[in-house]
Amino acid sequence: MSSVAREFFTVKRVSEARAGFLPAHRSGVERVALGDAWGRVPAATILARAPLPGFDRSSVDGYAVRASDTFGASESIPGYLRVAGAVRIGAEADGQVAAGTTIAVPTGGMLPPGADAVVMIEHTLEALPGTIEVVRPAAPGENVVRSDEDAAPGTPIALEGRPLRAQDLAMLAACGVVELPVHVAPRVTIIATGDEVLPPNADVLPPGHVRDALSVSIGALVREAGGDPRPAGIVRDDRHALAHRLVRAVRESDLIVLCAGSSVGTRDQTAAAVAALEPSEIWCHGLAIKPGKPTLLASAGGIPIVGLPGNPRSALVVFRLIGTPLVRRIGGWTAEPRTGAVRATLARDLPSAAGRLDIVQVRLAGDRAQPLFGPSALLSVLTAADGYLVIAEDATGLSAGEEVDVFPYA
Amino acid sequence: MSSVAREFFTVKRVSEARAGFLPAHRSGVERVALGDAWGRVPAATILARAPLPGFDRSSVDGYAVRASDTFGASESIPGYLRVAGAVRIGAEADGQVAAGTTIAVPTGGMLPPGADAVVMIEHTLEALPGTIEVVRPAAPGENVVRSDEDAAPGTPIALEGRPLRAQDLAMLAACGVVELPVHVAPRVTIIATGDEVLPPNADVLPPGHVRDALSVSIGALVREAGGDPRPAGIVRDDRHALAHRLVRAVRESDLIVLCAGSSVGTRDQTAAAVAALEPSEIWCHGLAIKPGKPTLLASAGGIPIVGLPGNPRSALVVFRLIGTPLVRRIGGWTAEPRTGAVRATLARDLPSAAGRLDIVQVRLAGDRAQPLFGPSALLSVLTAADGYLVIAEDATGLSAGEEVDVFPYA
Repeated sequence: MSSVAREFFTVKRVSEARAGFLPAHRSGVERVALGDAWGRVPAATILARAPLPGFDRSSVDGYAVRASDTFGASESIPGYLRVAGAVRIGAEADGQVAAGTTIAVPTGGMLPPGADAVVMIEHTLEALPGTIEVVRPAAPGENVVRSDEDAAPGTPIALEGRPLRAQDLAMLAACGVVELPVHVAPRVTIIATGDEVLPPNADVLPPGHVRDALSVSIGALVREAGGDPRPAGIVRDDRHALAHRLVRAVRESDLIVLCAGSSVGTRDQTAAAVAALEPSEIWCHGLAIKPGKPTLLASAGGIPIVGLPGNPRSALVVFRLIGTPLVRRIGGWTAEPRTGAVRATLARDLPSAAGRLDIVQVRLAGDRAQPLFGPSALLSVLTAADGYLVIAEDATGLSAGEEVDVFPYA
Repeated sequence: MSSVAREFFTVKRVSEARAGFLPAHRSGVERVALGDAWGRVPAATILARAPLPGFDRSSVDGYAVRASDTFGASESIPGYLRVAGAVRIGAEADGQVAAGTTIAVPTGGMLPPGADAVVMIEHTLEALPGTIEVVRPAAPGENVVRSDEDAAPGTPIALEGRPLRAQDLAMLAACGVVELPVHVAPRVTIIATGDEVLPPNADVLPPGHVRDALSVSIGALVREAGGDPRPAGIVRDDRHALAHRLVRAVRESDLIVLCAGSSVGTRDQTAAAVAALEPSEIWCHGLAIKPGKPTLLASAGGIPIVGLPGNPRSALVVFRLIGTPLVRRIGGWTAEPRTGAVRATLARDLPSAAGRLDIVQVRLAGDRAQPLFGPSALLSVLTAADGYLVIAEDATGLSAGEEVDVFPYA
């Protein structure tokens, strides 16, 4: 009986898959210009070659001084300093700051020789032409950014394996790094299968047919994870046709995604086609997750293969949880990012079986999280959702009124 | 005195700017193929033209039945049904389900005429060849996805003004929508200014000079917000040169970003150059935010202008808060997305002045948020941060041990 046969399938927990299905394969390395590097993953840690900013710099509009000349200065007993000149932005000072003198300096201006602090213009008064009163003391180093304070030579300015953020690009630009080695975006071949599946541009559907909703949407998730999606069309429910297509995909991909048929029979075909590849290994036939149980994880020739459930909704849920970290790992990420959540109050009880991860779609109304239900075949449950919540593997459910973390869809 | 002169500047709260600096200008509209539509913003709501899935469909592997034939069925008193055939996936049934008969149907298969429910294969036994026992009753509609259950004709399947997520692409593909009208990515001209500023590829810096860290990094934030960054090079600290460059930028842009000089003098130049444009309006000279006070918001000929502070760190902080929502709004977004946060425990007290928004960079170590400090000129504070926290405008600080929301950098 089919329900008995299914018991032989290897079903693993999602936590096991995330900790244990860890392909060694990584995408290649290429050099890119800094202007194209946002979100890319450095293939090596980049070090500062020279000090940044490279010169002692004022962080305020004010007067460069010898700090010792200002000690004890106050509103009632100001210090008097002769103004010996002014630094222009982007230029060296003409003179130097001797005892009893000062040189005006703008924000970002170079500290003139002899000075070791800057008094903010707000803490000075023009006493006479050419002389200022200082009404507060300045400590040595005050309002000065040291020559190597932002980066000393040899400091890491971009880390191997951490995708480049806007501020990393700013730091690289400031240090004069205008191109760098990054991982190539992983090539992810997406193969749709199923005798009932037609391309999205099919105008009229014959009875019993559906359009391929997954190639384009899984492609979007691949792109979001930094990958290069390569939709490979629709293969009939035929083990030999699928095996043939897979042989080529193994050669040309860093990861293969199979959007499998939805019924037991076609899932068996998919597993058989993967098992026929040499060498290949089936890591699991199913995951303890709802929705998304019929998920196949395997590899062939070192290339990981993710066989997604046939229901588009289940497939999208599983790919976010399992596929996204895989694409990132293959693309050189060395750590998973922290994912932000929106705090909300659960609007109703959610039962769950222990030992299974539950992903529940929710709509956010103010600070209330309203769970959405419906057969896992329904895409409309996903399109109506603002985000999802997770019921942990060991939990037996969540209660109405509980505070929950909702992961919002971007 | 300069500190007095600055008092005349219009300083607004960040909340006022976000609620009040709302340009009417929107980017144009273009049609894109579905494969290029991820993250794009529909310029019209798209409606389903036909029912989805388009036929009554089984959501399980099982047997199509008349529900009334199964009423009262149990393990002890099963119902017996004659198997009159099998539906193939992607095809119509040959026969129909008459009283006392059933037709086998796979997940996703078309419900044969006469049937109104499907019994899961797990709730049946093969009694004799050609006959099954049903051991549980099925309600009408059970395990069936109705012809228009995912989308009825006229249902919105993508909303005007909400960027397309993976699941929206899946729904559009399923409904046969293979191209759609979206807003053009807003053209954002980024102008760097400053006599001390050289391009990032400057190999050796003359004394007092720095490299342009902002064109590339603000460009990344523009791209993240769905815009099309157009770095326009570096303009000298000269009001007429800047005014000249701005005239061209107003013609060619949907938004203009000025990376202003850092000193009071150059900020005055920037404001004067903007004010000289006809027609133009200066909305504010400063924002009550730390870091980032010297932020100019203005418009010329209907095109909004953001004058960023000279310090790269302040500029990046302000652009995330003020520039990102502007780019999205101009690009057709009708709502700001919910931003997820990581909950963490604050490692030390953070004082703040009421009436001012404070953005504090933090490092996350487990569930502890460690604030990072340093002059606002330092980029290294931003590159070391895992995220930031916000001290609200009316708050006077946060206490060590408090639970805080940290917004992680992607």
